[in-house]
Amino acid sequence: MNNEQIVVKMALDAWNSHLSRTEKLFSELSDLQLQQEISPGKNSGIYLLGHLVAVHDAMLPLLGLGEKLYPSLYNIYVENPANAGLEEPLTEYLRKYWKEVHARLATAFEGMSTENWFGPHKSVSEEDFKLQPHRNKLNLVINRTNHLAYHLGQLVILNK
Amino acid sequence: MNNEQIVVKMALDAWNSHLSRTEKLFSELSDLQLQQEISPGKNSGIYLLGHLVAVHDAMLPLLGLGEKLYPSLYNIYVENPANAGLEEPLTEYLRKYWKEVHARLATAFEGMSTENWFGPHKSVSEEDFKLQPHRNKLNLVINRTNHLAYHLGQLVILNK
Repeated sequence: MNNEQIVVKMALDAWNSHLSRTEKLFSELSDLQLQQEISPGKNSGIYLLGHLVAVHDAMLPLLGLGEKLYPSLYNIYVENPANAGLEEPLTEYLRKYWKEVHARLATAFEGMSTENWFGPHKSVSEEDFKLQPHRNKLNLVINRTNHLAYHLGQLVILNK
Repeated sequence: MNNEQIVVKMALDAWNSHLSRTEKLFSELSDLQLQQEISPGKNSGIYLLGHLVAVHDAMLPLLGLGEKLYPSLYNIYVENPANAGLEEPLTEYLRKYWKEVHARLATAFEGMSTENWFGPHKSVSEEDFKLQPHRNKLNLVINRTNHLAYHLGQLVILNK
C-alpha cells in the first residue's frame, strides 16, 4: 500500500469503529431510554439518533454516491432543534433508517478508488478545490467521524 | 501540495479546531462548574480536564517528541477512575498544565516533516509496522482527535 491508500484505510477504520460502537449502544438502549434527555434541557437520545441518521444520509450526495434515502429527516433533525415541534418518525423507523443508510454508505465506500477519495466533495466548486485541495471526500469522512464521536460521548450517558 | 501533505494538513486542522473549541469551553467554565459531574455518577469536568491533559501529554513520547511534562497525571486520570481517591492537583494547576502541554505539542508539530508523520509511532515495533503501516504518527493524531471530540461532547453539557 502507498501512503494515500494507507490514509484511506485509517480514515475508514476510524469511521467504522465509531459506527460500530454507536450501533452497539443504540441496540442496548430501549426506546424508553432513548426518550430521555442527555441532560435536562439538552437533546434526547431519539433526537440524536435522528440527527446522526440525517447527517450521514446527507453524506451520500456530498460524496457523489446518489440521493439521500430519507431527505425529510434533514429538516427535522438538522435544520431544526428538538423543541421545534415537528412531527417525527416512530423510533422503530429511525432504527431501521439507521441500518439502511449505513448499509448504503458501506456498499458505496467499498467501490470507491483512492483517487476518488482525494477528489472534491460536492459542496466545493472545482475552482475552490484547486486552492483548497484538503476539501476532499476523505476529509468529509474524517470530519463526520469526529462529529459522530462527539455525539457518542453524549449518548453513552443514557446507558445506565 | 501533494496528497500526503494535504492529509497531514487535514488531520492537524481537525486536531487544532477541536482543541480550540475545548479550550474556549474550559475558559468559559468556572472551577465550580468543572466540579459538577457530566451526569449523576459520571465523570466530573475536572476529571475530564485532567484526563485530556494526561492523554495529550502522553502523545509527546508516543510521537517521539520527548518525555511527558507531567507524568504523574497519567496514573491519576488514565490508569485510575475518578473515584479512586487519589490526590489531585488544584484545578488552577490543571488549567496551566493544559496550556503547557498543548504549547509543547504545537511547537513540536510545526517541526515535523510529512515523512515523519507517516512513520511508526513509539508503541509499534518496526517489524509490526511493516505489516501494519497505518499505525503511524498521523493516525495517532486522528484517533486522539476523535477521543477529544467524544469528551468535548460531554463537557458542553456543563455549560448552562
